[in-house]
Amino acid sequence: MNYSPVQPPRRILMGPGPSDVAPRVLAAMAAPTVGHLDPYFLRIMDETQAMLRTVFQTENRLTLAVSGTGSAGMEACIVNLIEPGDRMVVGINGVFGGRMADVARRAGADVLTIERPFGEVFDPQEVAAAIKAHSPKVVGLVHAETSTGALQPLEEISELVHAAGGLLLVDCVTSLGGVPVEIDRWNIDAAYSGTQKCLSCPPGLAPVTFSSRAVEAMDARKTKVASWYLDMSMVRNYWSGQSRAYHHTAPINMNFGLHEALRAVLEEGLPARHARHLANHLALRAGLEALGIEYAVAEEYRLPMLNAVRIPEGVDDKAVRGRLLQEFGIEIGAGLGPMAGKTWRIGLMGEASTKRNVLLFLGALENCLQQAGCSIVPGAGVAAANNAYQDQ
Amino acid sequence: MNYSPVQPPRRILMGPGPSDVAPRVLAAMAAPTVGHLDPYFLRIMDETQAMLRTVFQTENRLTLAVSGTGSAGMEACIVNLIEPGDRMVVGINGVFGGRMADVARRAGADVLTIERPFGEVFDPQEVAAAIKAHSPKVVGLVHAETSTGALQPLEEISELVHAAGGLLLVDCVTSLGGVPVEIDRWNIDAAYSGTQKCLSCPPGLAPVTFSSRAVEAMDARKTKVASWYLDMSMVRNYWSGQSRAYHHTAPINMNFGLHEALRAVLEEGLPARHARHLANHLALRAGLEALGIEYAVAEEYRLPMLNAVRIPEGVDDKAVRGRLLQEFGIEIGAGLGPMAGKTWRIGLMGEASTKRNVLLFLGALENCLQQAGCSIVPGAGVAAANNAYQDQ
Repeated sequence: MNYSPVQPPRRILMGPGPSDVAPRVLAAMAAPTVGHLDPYFLRIMDETQAMLRTVFQTENRLTLAVSGTGSAGMEACIVNLIEPGDRMVVGINGVFGGRMADVARRAGADVLTIERPFGEVFDPQEVAAAIKAHSPKVVGLVHAETSTGALQPLEEISELVHAAGGLLLVDCVTSLGGVPVEIDRWNIDAAYSGTQKCLSCPPGLAPVTFSSRAVEAMDARKTKVASWYLDMSMVRNYWSGQSRAYHHTAPINMNFGLHEALRAVLEEGLPARHARHLANHLALRAGLEALGIEYAVAEEYRLPMLNAVRIPEGVDDKAVRGRLLQEFGIEIGAGLGPMAGKTWRIGLMGEASTKRNVLLFLGALENCLQQAGCSIVPGAGVAAANNAYQDQ
Repeated sequence: MNYSPVQPPRRILMGPGPSDVAPRVLAAMAAPTVGHLDPYFLRIMDETQAMLRTVFQTENRLTLAVSGTGSAGMEACIVNLIEPGDRMVVGINGVFGGRMADVARRAGADVLTIERPFGEVFDPQEVAAAIKAHSPKVVGLVHAETSTGALQPLEEISELVHAAGGLLLVDCVTSLGGVPVEIDRWNIDAAYSGTQKCLSCPPGLAPVTFSSRAVEAMDARKTKVASWYLDMSMVRNYWSGQSRAYHHTAPINMNFGLHEALRAVLEEGLPARHARHLANHLALRAGLEALGIEYAVAEEYRLPMLNAVRIPEGVDDKAVRGRLLQEFGIEIGAGLGPMAGKTWRIGLMGEASTKRNVLLFLGALENCLQQAGCSIVPGAGVAAANNAYQDQ
């Protein structure tokens, strides 16, 4: 057995995540490993928690990075809030709502799902009706559906959930760092994210935050959390207890990377970062529309960091994605679930949300579409994007 | 909020893990991130599986790295093998056996524990009696108890487990890469490890392997695995299925690091690596004994990579570990459970198992013990270790 050292091709990551990672974050990943109880590492954990609170816009004490990827964050939130028999309402309008319902059922929840076609979002009345019918302990919704590119408004729904005495759990995997996520102002009780989307850190950690109401619910549990690894009653003592008691060995270098990625986010500032994501989205949109490409999501609910668009009639999905990857080093995402083969997911997340990537992508896509025999006005995509930038 | 970039102090990691990481592995961690479905990453996964099979000494097809630290590997093995009501026998002779029983109970297992004082191991008759009493589906034992420094012989026990129709689950977190772990020859059905011990990769992944008998048991499940994140029926399709279907976003850069760490292990070769761990252990032992320090484990069951020793009478545990860390940059481990305050755990794992570290540590410990008022022959530790090296 004689394998070559790791030497990945240089990609531009414009899919649904992971996104491009800045060299400063990669360098932090390569800092010398220290022990998981080293005073230096405990300080890095403290600072990471403080920065996560800012990014989540929360004062929640229980805010930390779960030692797994985004789906581990989802599971951590659910298994800590749900005891067998607890009632939960889950909104499914994409793959990740479906995953949330699956995780909740495995945790023993009595789940009522409400559904919307992929690409749509829920209106508060639908959620209100489900709450009335099911009296759930927890309502779970996806803020930014990574599988469809749709953004779910949450403020009004949050009021309804709390008026009925429930807890609101929100998937912020793709939204955090790219659009406003206002945990405290919106009264969200539990939220999880991933490092590899708009925070532009490699995948491997899941930021989570729990409100004091959520912590009270966890403290009132009658049964142990089904997952030892994700049991917040122990994990939180390691992250912020008096004793900093050993629970599991944290992924040290991943946490170094997240620390540096959060530093970069806060250096830029959340408002500037959100504005950048929006500006590049609008330019990409202008360019795509000039190439005759349509969005799969209604304008008012579109995610700026994840553009789900319809594949033009007669164009071979895999062939175009393959050419983008092989000839231009650009990764975009395929459709998932009922959108497979019908949509592309074009990410402009974190470090990848740049003018450079927008223009390059439009040029490369034009090349691929011409190759596929589409009739398009040469240069129209880039021209429209540049116009959009001029107008901003 | 204005935190400094990550710039860890340079430690020598001689505790119970993480161990020192080679620069080549740190460099691989910092390779540019690619997508989790990128053909290049799929190849890295294939190669990692092949190398893990060699390190585990197995042909098991289902051999991969779980996207979490060692305890996630433990949980992955248990939740996939156990359905609610299944019977399990767990041997507890340290913290990690206790953790295994806790995880199994959370998974709904009817657990019979057998216990031995910390530092001791089980003899086959005890396990046979428990099997007879409980007729377990799974017997779980810890090969190398990281909390006590004891090595559990497994071959005879494996025969007993299989004669009774059970499956043998083994914790190889600390043993893998440091002493022989012969999954196929010993007929082990499921095993998990961590990256941060004798493989000398940063923490963040958990190598696991399952025999065909274990896979049959998983395929015959009547209930879904309690953990979505760790459900091998889906994870294995991502790692080695025909479709390489997306399950979760793998920690890309962690896997780059593991790939390089495994390359280093196989370049050295397992027999040479095991011999190196033994040689440095014997030299350290000679040096410690010359300083009047005793082991907490009987000679025949001592782990070469984790030396659990009794803290000399009258010596302040925390003060000595603090001085080693602050003045010499050396991390050693505290005792856990009933050994807390009574033992130190001195690791010689992977990259940290070197002559240099043995001699440095003995010199630094002598310094600390003199400071603590112990009467020792100056230079005796280093002299004894060098003698031991000469004799080898």
